[in-house]
Amino acid sequence: MSLPPRFDVLISEVGPRDGLQSVSATMSTVHKCAWIDALVDSGVQEIEVGSFVSPKLLPQMADAAQVVSHAVAHPGVTIMALVPNLKGAEAAMRAGAHKITLPVSASPAHSIANVRQTPAQMVEQVRAIAALRDEIAPGVHIEAGISTAFGCTLQGLVPEDEVIALAAACVAAGADESGLSDTTGMANPAQVRRLFTRLRSELGERAGAAHMHNTRGLGLANCLAAYEAGVRTFDSSQAGLGGCPYAPGASGNVVTEDLVFMFEAMGIRTGIDIERLLAARNALAAGLPGEALYGMLPPAGLPKGFVAHSYSAD
Amino acid sequence: MSLPPRFDVLISEVGPRDGLQSVSATMSTVHKCAWIDALVDSGVQEIEVGSFVSPKLLPQMADAAQVVSHAVAHPGVTIMALVPNLKGAEAAMRAGAHKITLPVSASPAHSIANVRQTPAQMVEQVRAIAALRDEIAPGVHIEAGISTAFGCTLQGLVPEDEVIALAAACVAAGADESGLSDTTGMANPAQVRRLFTRLRSELGERAGAAHMHNTRGLGLANCLAAYEAGVRTFDSSQAGLGGCPYAPGASGNVVTEDLVFMFEAMGIRTGIDIERLLAARNALAAGLPGEALYGMLPPAGLPKGFVAHSYSAD
Repeated sequence: MSLPPRFDVLISEVGPRDGLQSVSATMSTVHKCAWIDALVDSGVQEIEVGSFVSPKLLPQMADAAQVVSHAVAHPGVTIMALVPNLKGAEAAMRAGAHKITLPVSASPAHSIANVRQTPAQMVEQVRAIAALRDEIAPGVHIEAGISTAFGCTLQGLVPEDEVIALAAACVAAGADESGLSDTTGMANPAQVRRLFTRLRSELGERAGAAHMHNTRGLGLANCLAAYEAGVRTFDSSQAGLGGCPYAPGASGNVVTEDLVFMFEAMGIRTGIDIERLLAARNALAAGLPGEALYGMLPPAGLPKGFVAHSYSAD
Repeated sequence: MSLPPRFDVLISEVGPRDGLQSVSATMSTVHKCAWIDALVDSGVQEIEVGSFVSPKLLPQMADAAQVVSHAVAHPGVTIMALVPNLKGAEAAMRAGAHKITLPVSASPAHSIANVRQTPAQMVEQVRAIAALRDEIAPGVHIEAGISTAFGCTLQGLVPEDEVIALAAACVAAGADESGLSDTTGMANPAQVRRLFTRLRSELGERAGAAHMHNTRGLGLANCLAAYEAGVRTFDSSQAGLGGCPYAPGASGNVVTEDLVFMFEAMGIRTGIDIERLLAARNALAAGLPGEALYGMLPPAGLPKGFVAHSYSAD
């Protein structure tokens, strides 16, 4: 007898990495761990908890190894870390991360600005990291996140053929999966459906997550389009933390609370208890006093008569 | 030789009615007319410009007849007014409105709270209004907007059979079309697709507009789902004006600017010039100084390399 799956879609919470990396304040290690604990308590199954980069570049991430060590003590939760290169990947693997993700930009201009490497050089990083993984930590999962996949603020349009070819090159170089990121908030639902359909056709089960931004308000519509194209893993950030370059309300990342609400309302199980997820905002707020927290569900509350499928059908 | 259609979807701008009715300040008649002119200048094809209700109840709408008279001078634009009853309908028709819309709530509790009539009594209002229309203004189009179609803050769930039956009863009573309104911001994309599919199956070409709210952030995702279910008319409000009952960013109506951006980015023509639509915000702001204006596209701006289909393909 097999147990039913705990969720229909996997929400990959990126706030403790993508979010905290983007704000100017630094959350203490204790607060980071408490926030991660609260997220786990709500049922989140995968969390990106830190970035293994130079602490000179990103002092907010200097404690990544400590945070990973704490987080991996939670059974059944996948703990991820972002790494820009082989050195970071080794540190992340030695710290015990279950999964590492590399930002591989489809826009050469963006790639150089972001990680000082061309896309082709990043594919070689993937190859070197996969070889190291096979040697020192064979259980670790490697994801390539193809950034600027839907457009670039530097070069504008990014050819779709190049996006798909780069995603395939990363898998060929040893990545377990390649996902697509709307780094710049330029995606639209028709494009999302088209690109993820191509990605899945090209890579099959190695087609990875949708990482959408809400810069122009289309974050949830793009996630819906990705779902309809077969995507089942979605990156999002609690309270939309992570890049709010514009006016109040204009957050960067898709807000986890709103995304979970959308799926649960549709009867698509996330495995997450929305009330507890909302409670986890308090842990975030405690560690970043004064920081703006986004999201439409949190102030509005759940609708009268709302049925959350993850915690009613089971 | 026939001209190509000017748009693939019709954006029905409700700000000058739904929006202005919901804010406490009163916009002057001159400013209302200037805002409507700016909206027309951007290519908006249908505008709900006022509400024919008692000025004691809604002083913001006391000049509805004057505003309609001004607005109908624009050739080729459909000018709508909301009416709660026969008296209001007669005034709207005598003022020259091309189209009138009645709020017919599927929730008895909400219907009584909103217009002091049961849903069945509102169907009789539709019948009386249609008879009057046939007599004094046969060209006027009558729309029933089925409110609380996706849930009600008073009664919670609203049975879908009752929503569809009420929409059909309004058409049987003489309405030219029945649309569905997510008055309370409780809709989700699966429900939107299901209900509009049923509505179109039941009413065919008399299935009307989707009126979505963004209370919980799902406004655009719900519009996308409605589009996929065949809906081609969408209500929205410039700057999301109209009911912002919660925290900053938590607007009521779907933001016209963001909705037009979504469709244009997808290659679905709205007939609206986004730059001019953004400029029309200035006319709104001039008439409502200090009022919060919402929307994600306006602060972010159009993406680099963006191609607006309405003004490039033609």
